[in-house]
Amino acid sequence: MATPMAFGQAGGGKKGGTDDAAAVTPRAEDFSAWYASVISSGDLAENSPVKGCMVIKPHGYAVWELMRDDLDASIKASGAKNAYFPLLIPQSFLSREAAHVDGFAKECAIVTHHRLRAVPGEDGAAATVEVDPDAALEEPLIIRPTSETMIWSMFSKWIQSHRDLPLAINQWANVVRWEMRTRPFLRTTEFLWQEGHTAHTTAAEARARASQMIDVYAETAERLLAIPVTVGAKSPRERFAGAEETLTIEAVMPNGWALQAGTSHYLGTAFADAFDVTYQDEAGERQPVYASSWGVSTRLMGALIMTHSDDTGLALPPAVAPVQVVVVVIATKSPEAAAVVSPFVSEVASRLRAAGVRVEVDERSHLRPGARYYEWERKGVPLRLEVGPRDAAARTVLAARRVGADRAKFGMEVGDAFEAAITAELAATQQAMLDDARARTAERIFEVDTYAEMEAALASGDPARVGLFRVAWKCDEANELAVKEACKATIRCYPRDGQEAAAGRRCFYSGEPATHIALFGRAF
Amino acid sequence: MATPMAFGQAGGGKKGGTDDAAAVTPRAEDFSAWYASVISSGDLAENSPVKGCMVIKPHGYAVWELMRDDLDASIKASGAKNAYFPLLIPQSFLSREAAHVDGFAKECAIVTHHRLRAVPGEDGAAATVEVDPDAALEEPLIIRPTSETMIWSMFSKWIQSHRDLPLAINQWANVVRWEMRTRPFLRTTEFLWQEGHTAHTTAAEARARASQMIDVYAETAERLLAIPVTVGAKSPRERFAGAEETLTIEAVMPNGWALQAGTSHYLGTAFADAFDVTYQDEAGERQPVYASSWGVSTRLMGALIMTHSDDTGLALPPAVAPVQVVVVVIATKSPEAAAVVSPFVSEVASRLRAAGVRVEVDERSHLRPGARYYEWERKGVPLRLEVGPRDAAARTVLAARRVGADRAKFGMEVGDAFEAAITAELAATQQAMLDDARARTAERIFEVDTYAEMEAALASGDPARVGLFRVAWKCDEANELAVKEACKATIRCYPRDGQEAAAGRRCFYSGEPATHIALFGRAF
Repeated sequence: MATPMAFGQAGGGKKGGTDDAAAVTPRAEDFSAWYASVISSGDLAENSPVKGCMVIKPHGYAVWELMRDDLDASIKASGAKNAYFPLLIPQSFLSREAAHVDGFAKECAIVTHHRLRAVPGEDGAAATVEVDPDAALEEPLIIRPTSETMIWSMFSKWIQSHRDLPLAINQWANVVRWEMRTRPFLRTTEFLWQEGHTAHTTAAEARARASQMIDVYAETAERLLAIPVTVGAKSPRERFAGAEETLTIEAVMPNGWALQAGTSHYLGTAFADAFDVTYQDEAGERQPVYASSWGVSTRLMGALIMTHSDDTGLALPPAVAPVQVVVVVIATKSPEAAAVVSPFVSEVASRLRAAGVRVEVDERSHLRPGARYYEWERKGVPLRLEVGPRDAAARTVLAARRVGADRAKFGMEVGDAFEAAITAELAATQQAMLDDARARTAERIFEVDTYAEMEAALASGDPARVGLFRVAWKCDEANELAVKEACKATIRCYPRDGQEAAAGRRCFYSGEPATHIALFGRAF
Repeated sequence: MATPMAFGQAGGGKKGGTDDAAAVTPRAEDFSAWYASVISSGDLAENSPVKGCMVIKPHGYAVWELMRDDLDASIKASGAKNAYFPLLIPQSFLSREAAHVDGFAKECAIVTHHRLRAVPGEDGAAATVEVDPDAALEEPLIIRPTSETMIWSMFSKWIQSHRDLPLAINQWANVVRWEMRTRPFLRTTEFLWQEGHTAHTTAAEARARASQMIDVYAETAERLLAIPVTVGAKSPRERFAGAEETLTIEAVMPNGWALQAGTSHYLGTAFADAFDVTYQDEAGERQPVYASSWGVSTRLMGALIMTHSDDTGLALPPAVAPVQVVVVVIATKSPEAAAVVSPFVSEVASRLRAAGVRVEVDERSHLRPGARYYEWERKGVPLRLEVGPRDAAARTVLAARRVGADRAKFGMEVGDAFEAAITAELAATQQAMLDDARARTAERIFEVDTYAEMEAALASGDPARVGLFRVAWKCDEANELAVKEACKATIRCYPRDGQEAAAGRRCFYSGEPATHIALFGRAF
């Protein structure tokens, strides 16, 4: 299960045919191949010629835009303002914060030169280019892996007085982390994200901001993406490089692996200290500044894809489906039929658009209806409406759902109640997808008392026994590492809810008095 | 006039005081210093620690978001779909198209390594980092200066059949061009932009697409930004590297210099040929693919700032003002006054928000009203409403316009007609700013018959004589270069309208029969 994927190799530029791209590998057969085929057949993304970097295709990018715009509104409502900081960061900035440099120096893209020069082709070959050795930068620049250092270097100018605080800035940007093993959306060398950075007069206020934002992420994941998540804190070992506390939302995927879908950090005064940021309080005294930072990325796309898709391909919750309803027009080759169907389809589409529904009309006549149905299913469209001449004459459509137990086609009248029926159908689908995902998540969370139980489950080769293991734990970095090396499971989080259950229990691994309830699991 | 600015030097990190940032240099005294001070006092952007890169601050970024969202809707309405392509481009891609490599190889940021390593500090100093020589890339990567090469490498997979065409893709992204002399927004090493890329079965269709998009840009500049522009074609010398034709919108700034505000290119089959892209027509024959590309950038922010601002500072057209109306609350230190004023101010703000107006309420009591008025003026807010206890009791506000001949304060009743009066006021301001800009532009376009007239005007030192010179011209690259070397004026464009006037005239420079009407001018 979940073998490394070919993604990340230089693109081949294969010509002709789309049959391979359209086939979906059964999930039970090979989870990683299934995931890759859902992305490919759903037309979401594709390998690029640059190792580890993908192209987000229009259908995938439209999903991302819907997520981004929704989250952007929540971030603005939280009081943060958007801004934009440079892509390139002086190499020396990384060294300013000791933990931070350890976390990022080993996986960054480094700009060392600013000019290419021509190399004449030999024996009549075309000219090529090479790095011009005379154009070396005095100080190399790092492509941002995250922007704490750049932003705190600017905060040192913006924060002088208590009146400048709190300060809350958000940036939508691309970042680069030089990953060895990549998977589309889940781990790519370049990815898109938002990163929020805040500054406060007290530690309590900075911690509260970090907590507020993990709640925003959890709410967005469930309401918008229909992905149930567990909110918790990372163990010290798993914290962000430079953080005093890292909060996380963890989701569980259909193969039982955990996916960290968003994080929010309390940074203490580490970055303020590194960039010499203090503020003057009302009494005129210089005081330390406390920080939070928080981000989600295109990784959420990976969580969305895995949570809802099936062996037919992609399935999208209506809230983030670029096409919520597709109207497939059938059998209009004869002019007489077209004369009946076309105006009716136009009316259906206009009615739905006026009701705020995202509609696409598929009038292609060179493809069989079945091929078109399957194409829209693979693209995850929640509701399909089929319209032929008889439907048009009767002012009805034949509806088919993408997901759910009841996928039998059903008729709908295009009358006064039509738009309301469609929006109710979409709302019901959204809720049903969340309910289903919740039920599947609940089945994947196992309460175990002993380490042996977890180890046996993970070693069993039975996909149904892989998941998140809720255990009593005594916080200990050496033991945490030993568990990871033994069975590849890590602490995904100390869940926020239910920590009181640790009292009086013993660590499932060491037998010592437990300090936490921990969720262990394998992770993407 | 327009001496090079200090922008681009490493940031100083000056502590304390904001007086310098708040002062606006009179425009007549020093145009470049005025521009820099409008940006600084308007809180739009700031130098970053990286040479030539700026930080776009929240107020500046909010203006950009309004532009971007409006233009994004127009681009989608034109039939293009958004997607995202990698930041990094293999070095070898640049060489694929000969003219393209000449245009971009000399000014690009090159990633050569993917890891830093720690260097222990000497004599107890903290550790630093350096480029790890063992982490050199096999092939260096270029940070995209533009994405034709990457996108056409993908189009080679996406375009097979005539059914795949036309294809229209747009990307919102950051790009890097290693500029020696930079100015905030106008020319920065990194900038934000959109780049559209289209593929077509015929040259005529690709040319029409390029033309359609320059019209979108011109319409957006005038309607949204209140910037009058001239649509025209670039001379061969000024075309985009790789284009067969470059269309442009040119605006004229208050110092008489031209500003290229957006371009749209017909690329012929150059990139299709370079990346081996053909399509199969209905008869099964392979056929060439024709291209367009088009883009606008954060440079539009520079045009917006220069076109409308004055010696008070920034002035924004209401359509792109993040705050269209500021409500300044006065004299509420006494609890009795606050009890009257606060609910009234809340009502005013809610009424306007419900009417779709972007409102901010300024209740700060630690600053004098005059200081707050001036701050909002410097931020370019089109309309200020002042509310004190007497106003609240009488249900009136005192209004003051940011721009225009009539800036005397006037009273407005907060009754049934209030929202409509405010929206009408904003619409009138938008129109007045466009009308004023049109009048100023018209004064800056000079019809001259001889080269001597233009040269004398540019050499006169009289700012009122600097502008765009509309002349008869015989297209000739050598003469064009000679003019540029003599008086720094270049052909901004061959205006689309009025080319028929070239017939029968002689070139203002060479005396030979004219081929075009040209607009010459100095340019940013």
